[in-house]
Amino acid sequence: MPRVSGTKRSILDAALELASLNGITGTTMEDVAVRAGVAKGSVYYNFSSKDKLFEQLLLDGIGALAETLRQSRDGKTGGQALASMVTAMLELISGNQPLAKLIAAEIFRTDRSWQTHLQTVRREALAEIVTVIRETHPERPDAELMAGTIFGAVLVGGIEWLAFSPERSVEEVSESVLFTLSGRLTA
Amino acid sequence: MPRVSGTKRSILDAALELASLNGITGTTMEDVAVRAGVAKGSVYYNFSSKDKLFEQLLLDGIGALAETLRQSRDGKTGGQALASMVTAMLELISGNQPLAKLIAAEIFRTDRSWQTHLQTVRREALAEIVTVIRETHPERPDAELMAGTIFGAVLVGGIEWLAFSPERSVEEVSESVLFTLSGRLTA
Repeated sequence: MPRVSGTKRSILDAALELASLNGITGTTMEDVAVRAGVAKGSVYYNFSSKDKLFEQLLLDGIGALAETLRQSRDGKTGGQALASMVTAMLELISGNQPLAKLIAAEIFRTDRSWQTHLQTVRREALAEIVTVIRETHPERPDAELMAGTIFGAVLVGGIEWLAFSPERSVEEVSESVLFTLSGRLTA
Repeated sequence: MPRVSGTKRSILDAALELASLNGITGTTMEDVAVRAGVAKGSVYYNFSSKDKLFEQLLLDGIGALAETLRQSRDGKTGGQALASMVTAMLELISGNQPLAKLIAAEIFRTDRSWQTHLQTVRREALAEIVTVIRETHPERPDAELMAGTIFGAVLVGGIEWLAFSPERSVEEVSESVLFTLSGRLTA
């Protein structure tokens, strides 16, 4: 994730807080300025428009996911790599639940100015999972589809966890997701 | 799904079309009336507010999911029941892609008047998967979490399918999702 600091960070944080309460459409640049404690001109100086602001917020979030998946795979293959990636994704979701929910809500929309860019970065993130699948199953023509399936499993499982059983540890939830993928339910 | 017909159906269909283009917030009751070819008064006669209109659209959609899961399980248990449910969910998503995307985008939001009701119906739908898991794994305390994980896998896998490889048949995609859950990736 490209690290930003100072005013820019305050503005992005304020925008995320407001969007998780009122949605992106329900959030104005004025609201963001007030929440961040900066002048409205400063918000526009840092981001030329509301669309640009939320685009950066979402792209940073998915970029962080890609980076997390890359790091957690590090040298591992197959089931070990996937287990490590599942845990790392859950930790990321747990560490920034409002952003995870915003990404989940935005990733399927087709009416946003940032959709093309968002899909590109999303595919880059999923490419980490695709690589792991292809290493052990080069014969499968559907590695991308399966990577999307795993991404959806972890994203929805993670949000379900934080919403309904936040007392569980990330290790427990990781075990639940991996149990779901282990074939013991479908046997 | 409670079947509605005539004017009410036209209004719901028009609202879904518009929301898939412009988002719910970007859709007005006036737009819906024009698209449905009815008077604005007629839209308000059938739905007292835009929130009520979209609430019914989303609840109908999740209600249809619950009914589909119930029917597809019919007498089966374990892996057979899950395989049947995965295929049925994919068929449902494929049959109404705009509604599936709208549900995916709405299910994680926390700023909607209908969120409590939507979560209730969603849990009713997931309860069908929970039942299947509990039958074969009564010792697991995390059946709901695993049901959410499977739901996310199929929902995101299904949307991925329709967006990037719509030439695949529902049987192929169902096989991909079940392969992902089969343990052969995590072994």
